[in-house]
Amino acid sequence: MAYENDWIKVTHRDVLNPSGNPGIYGVVEFKNLAIGIVPIDTEGNTWLVRQFRYTLNQYTWEIPEGGCPKGQTPLEAAQRELQEETGLRAKNWTKIAHFHTSNSVTDEYGEVFIAQDLTPGEQALEDSEDIVVQKIPLQEAYQMVLDGVITDAVSMIGLMKAWQLMEVNGFGG
Amino acid sequence: MAYENDWIKVTHRDVLNPSGNPGIYGVVEFKNLAIGIVPIDTEGNTWLVRQFRYTLNQYTWEIPEGGCPKGQTPLEAAQRELQEETGLRAKNWTKIAHFHTSNSVTDEYGEVFIAQDLTPGEQALEDSEDIVVQKIPLQEAYQMVLDGVITDAVSMIGLMKAWQLMEVNGFGG
Repeated sequence: MAYENDWIKVTHRDVLNPSGNPGIYGVVEFKNLAIGIVPIDTEGNTWLVRQFRYTLNQYTWEIPEGGCPKGQTPLEAAQRELQEETGLRAKNWTKIAHFHTSNSVTDEYGEVFIAQDLTPGEQALEDSEDIVVQKIPLQEAYQMVLDGVITDAVSMIGLMKAWQLMEVNGFGG
Repeated sequence: MAYENDWIKVTHRDVLNPSGNPGIYGVVEFKNLAIGIVPIDTEGNTWLVRQFRYTLNQYTWEIPEGGCPKGQTPLEAAQRELQEETGLRAKNWTKIAHFHTSNSVTDEYGEVFIAQDLTPGEQALEDSEDIVVQKIPLQEAYQMVLDGVITDAVSMIGLMKAWQLMEVNGFGG
């Protein structure tokens, strides 16, 4: 074990390449799953959040996201994060994607859900969160992905997949 | 600096949260950009590669990918990686997406290109690469994303964006 904090553990191993020659691998193991939520109302709106990303030293527009710790299911984490960041509760949840964010160096795994049949409520932000919430048409959020304005991979995957499904199925539910 | 190898540097900092309370951040800084390529021929085929991902302990289907080190442009890296992994050379290159793979913990940035006007050639794999290359219709590769078979985020973003563009513009060029 080379480094550890509340979110990651970095391990360093000397292993053999497929060719049989020695290689060195540093693996960043994630303690939480990455969870993203695309809430969609019956008029085809979604909610984006703008927050400061310390890693990038910049503000970014993203779908509601958070970590799923051990002992919680991805769906439970998605419900909690959506409510914390936007105040929204949803009766209808659909998992629409799963993915590995950066498999050359990390084992990070994530899932995205669509949340429908929405009820508004109060935000309950964590101490480290300082975010702006914006309700916009899903089509505009999708266009922000196509235009390169949204650069967060989880948001890009979630919005592109959600838009593909909504084009086929519509916004009911 | 908490850990470093050829690909990443892990730094650990004590900083203040937006609320003014102390917080701890471990940031995984990437030395290379993540580069992905979606080659497309005039018949609408693309090329996928299957390789072993040590981080996940599994084989994965992905678009051709690699790292772009300092001193190389993303386009140069894309041209090199495409040729190394598939043997293909392309006359026509278009950047179609840029993204941050995992911005809660890393600063990793990447770009995906479409490569067209293709000429076949010989692979030139790196020592650590043991891959299978498969030519398939782009629509099938896109369906593998929708079906959750392809789970690599860079590949998902590249194939979804490429399919969206090809639906609009067609496969000429």
